[in-house]
Amino acid sequence: MIHLRLCFIGFGHAGQALARLLLNQKESLARRHRCRFSVTAVATRSRGGLVDADGIDLERVLENIRSRNRFSTQDNSLSSLTPTEMIRTVPADVVVEMTPLNISTGEPALTHIQTALSAGRHVITLNKGPIARAYRKLRDLAESSGKRLLFEGTVMDGFPVFNLVRETLPGCRILGFRGVLNSTTNFILCEMEQGKSFSEALAEARRMGIAEADPDQDLDGWDAAAKTAALINVLMDSSTTPEKVDREGIRRLDTEDLEKAGREGKTVKLVCEARRTDDGIQARVAPVPLVLSDPLARTEGASSTLTLFTDLMGPVTLTEENPGISQTAYAVLSDLLTLVRHIY
Amino acid sequence: MIHLRLCFIGFGHAGQALARLLLNQKESLARRHRCRFSVTAVATRSRGGLVDADGIDLERVLENIRSRNRFSTQDNSLSSLTPTEMIRTVPADVVVEMTPLNISTGEPALTHIQTALSAGRHVITLNKGPIARAYRKLRDLAESSGKRLLFEGTVMDGFPVFNLVRETLPGCRILGFRGVLNSTTNFILCEMEQGKSFSEALAEARRMGIAEADPDQDLDGWDAAAKTAALINVLMDSSTTPEKVDREGIRRLDTEDLEKAGREGKTVKLVCEARRTDDGIQARVAPVPLVLSDPLARTEGASSTLTLFTDLMGPVTLTEENPGISQTAYAVLSDLLTLVRHIY
Repeated sequence: MIHLRLCFIGFGHAGQALARLLLNQKESLARRHRCRFSVTAVATRSRGGLVDADGIDLERVLENIRSRNRFSTQDNSLSSLTPTEMIRTVPADVVVEMTPLNISTGEPALTHIQTALSAGRHVITLNKGPIARAYRKLRDLAESSGKRLLFEGTVMDGFPVFNLVRETLPGCRILGFRGVLNSTTNFILCEMEQGKSFSEALAEARRMGIAEADPDQDLDGWDAAAKTAALINVLMDSSTTPEKVDREGIRRLDTEDLEKAGREGKTVKLVCEARRTDDGIQARVAPVPLVLSDPLARTEGASSTLTLFTDLMGPVTLTEENPGISQTAYAVLSDLLTLVRHIY
Repeated sequence: MIHLRLCFIGFGHAGQALARLLLNQKESLARRHRCRFSVTAVATRSRGGLVDADGIDLERVLENIRSRNRFSTQDNSLSSLTPTEMIRTVPADVVVEMTPLNISTGEPALTHIQTALSAGRHVITLNKGPIARAYRKLRDLAESSGKRLLFEGTVMDGFPVFNLVRETLPGCRILGFRGVLNSTTNFILCEMEQGKSFSEALAEARRMGIAEADPDQDLDGWDAAAKTAALINVLMDSSTTPEKVDREGIRRLDTEDLEKAGREGKTVKLVCEARRTDDGIQARVAPVPLVLSDPLARTEGASSTLTLFTDLMGPVTLTEENPGISQTAYAVLSDLLTLVRHIY
């Protein structure tokens, strides 16, 4: 039986969903994968932190958040350590990085990941910023530390994009890709196709919990550009940043543009694409009218579609339908199980 | 550098494409995967066999087939051994089974695979018959022999269906699946939707090299049923056969049926499906009118689409676009590289 101690940096929706998943899957993980996980530290921005080297009682913590939206002040495990101090000093095998995205700096996730690898922890991150900005540096640091850096949840949630290429397309070279990878903009475009105005569609996306309170990063294509950069850095062995991706968001589109596309038998999607050329890798994010037979055209609502162009296997298309927070939590679990197999 | 000696059983289109792929990728395999492959035996039904423990000259063999459609009578490696004798006696690490499919018996592939595993060879097969009929027995035999049995090419060619579940969806349980998995019938249905009659569409499929000389197994749904059974046996840890799959082919359909579906905004596909129920696994193959928003609806021509329903990751959809024989050859190469990693 392998026992891995986890340090959670961030405990928002994803962290809480992960805690629930680990509780629900506890028996099955022990039986089928001969592993168990305990959480020795939880760092949050607004709720303070928890530390318990014997394992935090996740059930109680989740109950406190559900009923009172905070940790219990009676909790013996309450801690005033900063996230970086926790990463350095609390006994843990894996740091799970789940802080909010900052595309322009990658921080604080970038520092957390570097600190964790340098301190001899494996790292699993849901944060695409560091992968989009500094993958090569982090990969080299992980290698020299003899630790793993896993990040399946950064693109298409738990859908195994990076694992697919690494584990199941051996010998294939990725020549390029095309994808619809941002849920918020795709949901808005689908609603606008049904006749809603941009602001009505955005309000609906907020009501559904798809758009964030501040949706600028999605609407201006920054989130899509970060995913594009992450895919290029990892799958095409290059070194780019979101700023280097030619980028156009969806704000200039109005209902009439979508109606016009519809009359031509087309549907408009925010397409992420990259391809190898003689001048290096060309990458862009832009709204594109697609014919209905295009594999990306029928990406509905909050779904995602990605086509990878490979040298030996031709095009490989993956679709994730309307994922929720439990798919994000599964991304971390799948990375944890990859670690377990790596250790065996 | 790992060196694996291969015994090819069957040397039709797939075997020849594999030989070309191994020649083309030789340098890249040595550099990137630190492995090399030699072929010590080739068995065929109509051309006789070749054996050379030092490695057959594949370039010369391919040239002889291209120019004279046979092996050279001058070839020192000509052999009169039967396939089974070759599997038993020629020095080889991996037997690559590429004989034609016999759905009702699984033979001769089944005997070849059993012989190979018992003789201490790893096995890679492109033949879905044994996987659809006797997977559990073969898996257990492989386990007790300490050898690997790999078969990525049996469903969706080189698209990593089995590897995807095994390597990249750890902890997920497959609850069921739906797929369009037979190229010939899908191509015919697409042509009939364009107004062609069944026999015109079949003739076109033959002309394009998509339909086989004897297309009955495709048209009557047997090929689809065999793929359905293989997926159930491997991904749902069950034990079924093609005969137990509720099966209906496409012969009863005429152009009018497809036009009627079209008027209702639907498209007809030969759908393979299976799901867990309280009474075990229910499986069927049948032509089904699909609404256009169905993920299977846009499977065009010889393409395939498969949706896996999982407990933790929700539905996962995979699409392979118009594969050719090189994708089939890649399936074997990807299994070979899985073996190489397994050995390291």
